[in-house]
Amino acid sequence: MEKKNQLPKNAQRVFQGALFDVYQWNQEMFDGSREVFERVMRPDTAMVIPVVGEKILIIEQRQPDQAASVIGLPGGRVGRGEDPLRAAQRELLEETGYVSDDWVLWNECRPVAKMEWTVYTYIARGSTKRQEPHLDPGEKISPRFISFDEFLALADEPNFYERELIPVLLRARYETSARVELSQLLFGKRI
Amino acid sequence: MEKKNQLPKNAQRVFQGALFDVYQWNQEMFDGSREVFERVMRPDTAMVIPVVGEKILIIEQRQPDQAASVIGLPGGRVGRGEDPLRAAQRELLEETGYVSDDWVLWNECRPVAKMEWTVYTYIARGSTKRQEPHLDPGEKISPRFISFDEFLALADEPNFYERELIPVLLRARYETSARVELSQLLFGKRI
Repeated sequence: MEKKNQLPKNAQRVFQGALFDVYQWNQEMFDGSREVFERVMRPDTAMVIPVVGEKILIIEQRQPDQAASVIGLPGGRVGRGEDPLRAAQRELLEETGYVSDDWVLWNECRPVAKMEWTVYTYIARGSTKRQEPHLDPGEKISPRFISFDEFLALADEPNFYERELIPVLLRARYETSARVELSQLLFGKRI
Repeated sequence: MEKKNQLPKNAQRVFQGALFDVYQWNQEMFDGSREVFERVMRPDTAMVIPVVGEKILIIEQRQPDQAASVIGLPGGRVGRGEDPLRAAQRELLEETGYVSDDWVLWNECRPVAKMEWTVYTYIARGSTKRQEPHLDPGEKISPRFISFDEFLALADEPNFYERELIPVLLRARYETSARVELSQLLFGKRI
């Protein structure tokens, strides 16, 4: 799948990094003058809410450049040309050893206006363990199983890593319709 | 004020753009192998919630590279070496012509883990109009005065530009203590 982006047609890549690419273009201002506009692009992220029985599987993770652990969801970068769902399935298996054959896209957001970056969050219903995790040298991960209410309470956790999910967690906590919808998606029947 | 950042000491700037700089460093992994890690840095943002009588002043804004208008708060980039409060005062005056002598820092957040970028949101209590706005060639701005409840409802507006404020708006809508605190900060007595 080719990554969608909202860059103007005349945008040129001026830097290609390990993670971030930078694009620039010459933008006409309202008075006819011109300025260099700039945006960064990073690979999209695919995250997973794995449902295991009545619980949700989250991970405690240390990153090589951080002293403290963070908690978050299994997931990671969508590869070049990779489908986001495929990336979610791959990351879930690598990081936790779990699989599911019942996937739903729950949330898709673009957290920063000047960054081409979309975060996809999938629900993996009825997940089961197939094998041991297969971690990269840059990953230290341990699983944790939490309840629905504990999941919504992650919005209050300072070391919750997926900051871009906080609005949807807060809505699910405080808005009945959002809460019912999420609970159905996680634990309800297949649609 | 020197910009604080959380980059490791051995991080090197590998790209300097119009808005974004890119830093890289050689990071030791958990198994002793090494990989290039990367982060972007952009100027911090200072935003303002100007209180004018019982109302809050927001702006409707068109940007040169976007067809549709967005709504948001007055504010903009913190200049190199500039204090965030000073930037907030400058942007409020430029974009709206308003001034205040009663400023409070309401919210400070770092929206994206891999980006060195802090967003400061100030409250400018008892704001009054001093002059006409002084807009850049890249700005088309018109003011709008809204109530406290309309302000909290911006969290639901798809064209609300300040996405990083949505969590605090939702909390102020749904959590009594956050609501009372914000209402006091906006309209209450000087502390």
